[in-house]
Order: sequence, then C-alpha cells, then structure tokens
Amino acid sequence: MTTAALLESLSSRLPRESLFADAESLDARSADATEDLRARPELVVRPRSEAEVVALLAAAREMKFAVTPQGALTGLSGGALAVNGGVALDLTAMNEILEIDRENLFATVQAGCVTETLQNSVEAVGLFYPPDPSSRGSCTIGGNVAENAGGPRAAKYGTTGRYVSGLRVVLPGGKVLPLGGKNRKDVAGYDLLSLFVGSEGTLGVVTRATLRLLPLPSERRLLWASFGREEQALAAVARLYAAGPEPSACEFMERKAAEVSAAQLALALPADADAHLFVEVDGHEATAIAADAERIGQMLLDAGALDVRVAMNDREIRDFWRLRRAVGEAVKRLGPYAEEDCAVPRTRLPELLRAVREVARRRGLTAVCYGHAADGNIHVNVVQPPGERERWLAERDAAVAEIFRAVVALGGTITGEHGVGLTQRAYLTLRHPPEVIAAMRAVKQIFDPEGVLNPGKIF
Amino acid sequence: MTTAALLESLSSRLPRESLFADAESLDARSADATEDLRARPELVVRPRSEAEVVALLAAAREMKFAVTPQGALTGLSGGALAVNGGVALDLTAMNEILEIDRENLFATVQAGCVTETLQNSVEAVGLFYPPDPSSRGSCTIGGNVAENAGGPRAAKYGTTGRYVSGLRVVLPGGKVLPLGGKNRKDVAGYDLLSLFVGSEGTLGVVTRATLRLLPLPSERRLLWASFGREEQALAAVARLYAAGPEPSACEFMERKAAEVSAAQLALALPADADAHLFVEVDGHEATAIAADAERIGQMLLDAGALDVRVAMNDREIRDFWRLRRAVGEAVKRLGPYAEEDCAVPRTRLPELLRAVREVARRRGLTAVCYGHAADGNIHVNVVQPPGERERWLAERDAAVAEIFRAVVALGGTITGEHGVGLTQRAYLTLRHPPEVIAAMRAVKQIFDPEGVLNPGKIF
Repeated sequence: MTTAALLESLSSRLPRESLFADAESLDARSADATEDLRARPELVVRPRSEAEVVALLAAAREMKFAVTPQGALTGLSGGALAVNGGVALDLTAMNEILEIDRENLFATVQAGCVTETLQNSVEAVGLFYPPDPSSRGSCTIGGNVAENAGGPRAAKYGTTGRYVSGLRVVLPGGKVLPLGGKNRKDVAGYDLLSLFVGSEGTLGVVTRATLRLLPLPSERRLLWASFGREEQALAAVARLYAAGPEPSACEFMERKAAEVSAAQLALALPADADAHLFVEVDGHEATAIAADAERIGQMLLDAGALDVRVAMNDREIRDFWRLRRAVGEAVKRLGPYAEEDCAVPRTRLPELLRAVREVARRRGLTAVCYGHAADGNIHVNVVQPPGERERWLAERDAAVAEIFRAVVALGGTITGEHGVGLTQRAYLTLRHPPEVIAAMRAVKQIFDPEGVLNPGKIF
Repeated sequence: MTTAALLESLSSRLPRESLFADAESLDARSADATEDLRARPELVVRPRSEAEVVALLAAAREMKFAVTPQGALTGLSGGALAVNGGVALDLTAMNEILEIDRENLFATVQAGCVTETLQNSVEAVGLFYPPDPSSRGSCTIGGNVAENAGGPRAAKYGTTGRYVSGLRVVLPGGKVLPLGGKNRKDVAGYDLLSLFVGSEGTLGVVTRATLRLLPLPSERRLLWASFGREEQALAAVARLYAAGPEPSACEFMERKAAEVSAAQLALALPADADAHLFVEVDGHEATAIAADAERIGQMLLDAGALDVRVAMNDREIRDFWRLRRAVGEAVKRLGPYAEEDCAVPRTRLPELLRAVREVARRRGLTAVCYGHAADGNIHVNVVQPPGERERWLAERDAAVAEIFRAVVALGGTITGEHGVGLTQRAYLTLRHPPEVIAAMRAVKQIFDPEGVLNPGKIF
C-alpha cells in the first residue's frame, strides 16, 4: 500500500496526530545501528496508547499491510527495519514508567521507556534493573524484550528475559494477550511469556512490561587486567567463573580493539599488552567485595596478567569502562565493517579467535574482536583494510559465512544478543536443523498467519 | 487399544524387555503423589535409549494411542497419570549423568536422572545445581523440566527453567528437536527451549537435558524465627527481600502446620508461636555470610520475632529443615485433603491466608498453610475435619474454587510449581482469559496435532 492509501485507511481509525507521512519522519525511521542498511516505511505511526496499537494491528490484518515495530532503532541486526515498506510502528512515545513496586520489587513500564531511565529511577529508590545493553542510554525496554538484550552484567545477572515477569502483547488482528504478572513462580499452562521474549517483533507487539527488580548492590570494584598473551586472558575467564562468586561482568578486548578505542579516547595503554580483561564484582557487603576483588586480582596475576588495576569508586569505575564502552564506535570508524555477534561455550573462546583470524588472514581482511567473554559472546568485526574496497566486496560475505561455520562447529550460535533480524537470516540454517526451524515457523503461523508483522525477518 | 493389541504392535518396534504388561508393573505406574488419584495404563514402556522413545512416539502417532511420560511419579497435580490408558512411558531407566563439564559449568543428564543424584555428583566437584523440589531424593530431572519444579531455593536461584540450557525432545511422530546447548546466550530464533519447560509432558518427551551449574557456595546459615503473630512473620518476608542480599530461602509455616510436623517428629516448639519463618543465607565468603545472618536475625527480631535460632553447620541446618521438610507428609496424615499450590505477589500473602481461612471457616473445613513465602507460593491444604466425611465431600470442591478465585483476585496464580496437570484443569480459565488459553491450545496443536501425548492434561 502507498503512503496515501495507508494514510487514508488509517485516518478513520487512529488519531491524525499519531500518523506521520512527511519525508523527514519516514527518513528518521529508515535506519538502525546495523552497518549501512536502510529501509523506508510508507508511513510512521507513533501511538500514545495501547488502544491505538490495537486499532493499527486490527487494520493491518484486515488490509494486509506490513507493520514493523520499532523502538529507539539501536538494533544491530536490522530487525526493526521496514524492509517490506508498510507502517513503521514507533513505540517511543509510549515511554512511561507506570509503577515501581518497592515492596514486591517490580517495575511496570510502557514499551518505549528508555532502559537507562528505568535503571536510574529504580536506583533512586535502592533497587536495581541489571540488563545493561551498551545502547542503554537510548534503547527501549520494548526493544530489549524483543531482542532479549544482554550486556556485560548478563555474566552474573542473565539477560532481559530473566527479568520479564509480565507482558501485554497485541497480536496481528488486535487481540491483546495479558501474560504473567507479579508472581515469582507461575506454571499455569505454557510459558508464552518466554516465547515473546527474543521474538524480534515478529509474533506480537509488546506494549507494557512488568520487570523483576533486585536490591541495589551497594559495593562495586572493577579490575582491569592486561595480558602479554591473549590465551592467558581467555584461560583466566573460565578459571574465574569456576571458582565463584561470579564476577558481575568479565569483558574481553583484543589488542587491536583496545588500541582503536584508546586512540579515540587519547588514553595510554600498558606497553606489551596483547589483550585486556575488565572484571567487575558487586555485592552488598563492603568487606566481602574487597576480599573478592583481592582474590580475583591475585587470580588474574597468577594467570599471567602483566598488570591489574583496581577501580574503587564510581568515578574510577566509569573511567575504566570508557575504554570498553568506546570500542564499538571506534571500530566502526576503521572503515566498512560487518559485526557478527558470535557466542560459543566459554572454554572454546581461544579456538573461536584463532578461527576468526585464520579466515581474515586468508581472505585479506581485518578482524577486530571484543565482548562478553564470561558468556562466550564475542563481537567479531570484519573490517575492510584501508583502500581495499574491491577485496572487501568480494570476500566479506564468504568470510562471515566461514566464521559462522566455525562458530557452529565449536558448539556455538550465530547470535548471542543482537538477534537474527535481517542480517543473520541466511545463517539460521547453520544453527538449527530443519525440524527446529519448522517448529519456529509453525509458532509464527499461530500468531501471525498472514505475515503482516515485521515481515522478512528471522527466517 | 488393549494391552494385547499394544503389546503386539510394539513388539516388532521395541525390544521385548522394554515392554511391561504384567499387573504389578501396570499398578506401579498408576498413581503419583496427588491425593488418592489412580489411572492404570494398558502397557508400560521403559526405554533404555532415545531411539526407543522415537520408535514409541512414531508408533503412537501412526496408531493413535495415548502416551503418558512418567518420571518418578512424585507429581502433585496428576500430570503423569495415564488417564486415557494407553502407554505409560517410564523414563526412569534412562538415568545416566552423561557429562559434568567443570570448565564450562554444565551437566548433561538423561531425563530419568534423579535430581539429588545430580546434586551430589556436582557438589563432589565443587559445583552446585540449585533447584531443590522436596521430592529431590526420588524425582527426576525430566519431571523437573516438565513441571518447571521449584523448591525453597527458588527464592534466590529461580526454578528449574533458569538452569535448562539444552534439551533433546522427541515429538509425537518421532522427530527429535535438539534445542539449545552450552551457550550462555543464544537468540537465534524463538525460545522453544522455554516452551518445553513446564509443558507437563504434553508437547514432547525430553530425553536429555544440559543444565547450567554454579560454583558451590561454601557458606550457609539457617535462621529459624518464631512469631507471636502471623502477620509479623509475613511482613518480615517482604522487608527481608527488599533489603538485599537475597536470602537463598525463606519458608513459612503457620501454627498448625508446625504443630503437626513437630508432633510427627516429637519436637518441641516455642510456646506462643503462631507462625515460623526459616530463612537461609548462602555465599562464598564466611565473614559476609556471618554478617548477613547477623543482619537478618536482627531484622527478624525488629519485625517482632519472639525468638531467632541460628544453625551454623550442615548438621544443625539439616535438623532445622526437618520441621519444614516433614510438614507435607504430616499434613496428609490429618485425613482426606486437597493440596492447592497457590501463588500471589509476595505482599499479598496476608490477604491470601485471611481468604483461605474465611473459606475454610464458612464451609466447616480445616486449612493448613505453609510454603515458599519468598516467592509468594503457599501450599494450601484443605483437610477433612475428623469424622466429617459428608461435609468434606459436599464442600471440598466449592472451597477450592473459592480459594482460587480469591488468589486470582489478588493477582495470583493457580499453581506456582506443581503444574496444572489433571487436578487444576478446571481452574485454568480463572487464571487466563480465553485468548491466552487459545494461544496455548494452538501451541499444543503444532507439536501434537493428534493429541496422543499426555491427553487430558492442562486444558
């Protein structure tokens, strides 16, 4: 359907001020954070209420136009791009925190609530919402639920799904499923809640989420360890997590990742450092956390660290994290790139990195690796070497496919936290046998038989 | 199909020594731990391999006979009873621990592995499998996955589902779905893994599970607090969990529950105690745990506890737990009973208990309540008063329905950890609106369109 046709059809069902057909609005909803992809919707609908979402999804099924749910467009797999045109459903105006239940430890928010806004609001009353995707300053809870977003703290606290206790989901056709609630245990029938978590906006539109909270840990330490040899760093990760208590985060950066990030920040790095680990511990008792930091520092030195620095307070911790946080943007400035969100069982990380480098070397490309070592989840960036545009175009796709084949051979998966979306669709068959994909497709059929919701994704 | 017909059909497809048609075998597979229900299968199949499960489920779909998966038959909702006859699929012979991966912190077991066997095996190498249903000495991992089993430690560690990282599932017809694995994060497509967790053997038969492990906490303390007024105990629960760190367990027993359990064990209870809390803390640092226990003890006293006793070592902790552990059996000896597995948001517990008592009083029945207070999950036992058989039969069902209506009005659910099975089927419509139940039925259709797997359950 054309913009004019959509506008005409929807004008009678939705408030005119929720519909945007101007070029600027359409352009603003045409790209996410995935490399250089663009897909322009025919219309943007920015609802203020669940009732508007219901009206839109009823119309979509009736008139068979595509609806692509969107949050802050920080996604890294093209999952929120309106690749079939139709309506971009922009949920960012539904951004309220509806309740912080301090006694039961739950927050209820609208889908468009920014993750960091929720985090700050609950921290102000001594509570804690752990998931911390790197885009948390702009990404939304709805998007986090759709992607089952992770972040460094998933190492100890798990990903978004662990905190989703209730959802309101609008289905194509306009039915609303109220799922879960504030019960900490509930086995009344199938776990539909988990089915919607990580479904990338292809099964239903989350309008509201009830999220578990924890008491806010009062104590934190961050250790930054530099290693002369990368294998030492990776071996240390597995050892740290087998010993307990679990560090709240354990991030890895290879030499090149640290160098490009440090250059951007004008920071100095320890000489001779081939790899870096950032290990965070948190808890409620100052003496215990001090002891943990001491023990972990010693363990890192025993594992061969050249140097371990400890950040003791919030300011120092923020400073240390800067190097890790800046790397995503810094790597992207090296040139055209493809970012792959590989995950393998923790102990297979050395093999993953060897495989990545072997592929990059053979195909004359550059690879830069960093990420959530504790979860075996490494962001592998394949980058165009300066001036090598033709080689890049010729070799890129084959390199990515080879890397994913290596990942799967190591018992790994093609995406740990970014989702399949558009960019990883071609690799889903590497990860799952046909029976599993058939079952997933059958699930899609239940909720969206006409395929109007976020078409062209996952499969 | 009759026993003879099943036996004849299956003899050519399965080893003869896996088929049991004698009366003793059929009787042994006719009851679980749910009140006094019985349902006799026509045949028992006790496979030794996944290939046998595949052969059975291929035959079941072809010939349309019912298959009811069974573990140790410790279930509390009749979920594993062969109510439509057919085959009882006894998975207890597939009970091996296939691997304990000490570096990646995973165990892979066959479905029939006894939960406590797994726990002991991983603890022997310094690791920890937290879920601890009270039947853990006999129940199986397959059953725990099917029911998403909980237990006291779910308060801090979550239920079985949090630990399920991989499953092999055989579907009606014989297809095998290999799901998940040893990745700590994996968002490649829909979360089918969670869909099978808690599906009560109605979607597929789990033959193998890969389970996350944690480092074993070396330190534990158990506090037993007695309160003069029940409301004080319940108010203390919410306060404890809002303060952090989270106790690993927080169990509640009302006066009558403690009395029947103490009588059975010939233990003395503190005079004037109207309710009891058992609060456990665990961790890796002795000083931190000692401080936690101190802080929690003080908090319990501040909340009005008459008395707080602290168990410091494993023997004392086991002794303290005896009172709580014995209560289930002790209550059952009071007479005919119906056990309801109610859960409500934590702060609604006082209202739940008031509602239960009001119903019991009005209908002239006895109610005994105890359970996992931290999770708002209380086992409500409605018991026949001595000699009141007729009243019991006349009032029981109405009393249970009234209790569930009150639970749902409090934002609660009809089962926190026992499953819907057979006994709670009638109440599923109290918990979920028709759209949600329709979606669940559609999921059942995907995997078991002929309804051969565990028929007569959940819906």
